[in-house]
Amino acid sequence: MIVDGKALAEKIKAELKADVSKLNKKIRLAVVKISSDAATEKFLEQKRKFAEAIGVDVRIYEIHPDISTNKLREKVSEIVHIKENNGVIVQLPLPPQINTQYILDAIVPEKDPDMLSSKSWGAFAAGSARRRTKILPPVAGAVKAVFDEHKVEIRDRNAVVIGAGRLVGKPLATWLLNAGATVSVIHRGTKNPEEYTRKADIIISGVGKPKLITPVMVKDGVVAIDCGTSESPPGAGQASRQVVGDIDPGVSEKASLFAPVPGGVGPVTVAMLFKNLVELSK
Amino acid sequence: MIVDGKALAEKIKAELKADVSKLNKKIRLAVVKISSDAATEKFLEQKRKFAEAIGVDVRIYEIHPDISTNKLREKVSEIVHIKENNGVIVQLPLPPQINTQYILDAIVPEKDPDMLSSKSWGAFAAGSARRRTKILPPVAGAVKAVFDEHKVEIRDRNAVVIGAGRLVGKPLATWLLNAGATVSVIHRGTKNPEEYTRKADIIISGVGKPKLITPVMVKDGVVAIDCGTSESPPGAGQASRQVVGDIDPGVSEKASLFAPVPGGVGPVTVAMLFKNLVELSK
Repeated sequence: MIVDGKALAEKIKAELKADVSKLNKKIRLAVVKISSDAATEKFLEQKRKFAEAIGVDVRIYEIHPDISTNKLREKVSEIVHIKENNGVIVQLPLPPQINTQYILDAIVPEKDPDMLSSKSWGAFAAGSARRRTKILPPVAGAVKAVFDEHKVEIRDRNAVVIGAGRLVGKPLATWLLNAGATVSVIHRGTKNPEEYTRKADIIISGVGKPKLITPVMVKDGVVAIDCGTSESPPGAGQASRQVVGDIDPGVSEKASLFAPVPGGVGPVTVAMLFKNLVELSK
Repeated sequence: MIVDGKALAEKIKAELKADVSKLNKKIRLAVVKISSDAATEKFLEQKRKFAEAIGVDVRIYEIHPDISTNKLREKVSEIVHIKENNGVIVQLPLPPQINTQYILDAIVPEKDPDMLSSKSWGAFAAGSARRRTKILPPVAGAVKAVFDEHKVEIRDRNAVVIGAGRLVGKPLATWLLNAGATVSVIHRGTKNPEEYTRKADIIISGVGKPKLITPVMVKDGVVAIDCGTSESPPGAGQASRQVVGDIDPGVSEKASLFAPVPGGVGPVTVAMLFKNLVELSK
């Protein structure tokens, strides 16, 4: 079974549109934008389109990339304090001179749909029962939505997360652990990755390395979720670079469920960002 | 090699005593105490003795166990705001009607030597470079001190953490991951625990179940760190209940390094709490 992330995102979009119109107030997402490479523009365009479709405003705050960490922190604090901004996100990555976590920590949990501030992260990791923790980091919310849709059991299953990054590996490992899985996090330093992947019931990869996971590395019936993205050079007859994931598409033949890149978890992650925003705006 | 936690704690104690006398100001640890069973009293007595030895004051705030979550949160906030309290800890567990994380979240990171608030936890987990994250959750700081003392390498080694609790399993798994290990967290739901433990270079257990880890479950040369505590009934010729760990002492014969309970990581964890307090007081 191949996950149709676009269809799932459309379903969530329709629900959110109804929610927003019931709320009967203007919701606005503030986006702090510093870099302006093609990838950033593309992600931003996806968010802008989604927002428009559900009736949410997006306000872009463009910042010059030469800014200092302290100035940027002040600026983000100002943006957070503007009453009309219901949520604030910072487009990553930030320029190298910036202390990224310090900037993200300027976003209060009540306005943090990306859940990247230390406080949001801690509340999520601790599994606290307070309101702001009803939401999940968007990538975890997206995988949860996929698992709910396809009735994937998590409790007591062996899960392997590939990559220990702040945006994908860590939140997914934490979420799987809180949901009762046995969780192994492996990465480039792991000497025997196959020993982990071959016995995994669930594999989630978020590295950004094409064909990192091949069919021989997984067992029959695995749930394989690709959250990695990288660009491969254009192939024969292709005009432009292709977005590819970490998991060789051949894995789909052994998998009971396969979420590919593109078209799997990605569109759902955008939807979950807005689901968080709407939840925080209630 | 058996870890002598008492000796290591004495070494840290001597360093802290010198630090405190150099600081030339009164340092005070506030302890919020609600339950008063024998185990709580024992932990408290250890802390009181350590504090006295390094010249730090301890102030106990006794609270009636019938208190509501909201009243207790107010009370802890008050205690946190008292200027003379350089650090505040809450003796766990709290009574069942209390939302524990909400109470712990009343402690600001600047006064949180136990690092149990969401904000402290998030900053630690995110690996942020701000000042408050120079400190580690005491149990992680203790294992780090043991590893530093015995020159245990972490990067790229296979580590297995047993138990996913908030006080031991989660902070240790996060710390090991941030330090570059491949980390598996296993627990009571794990179907094949031996498959994980047998290939582990490092095993850390924090479950509280006697003899959970036996010699056949580990490989030769393993680094085995016991952070579990439970009480076993008195044996023949013994007058009182014995404190025992999760790891069968027979494991020491296969281990390159073994930290037993009692006498291993425990005394060092108390020392690291005070090291955090002194660091936050600077």
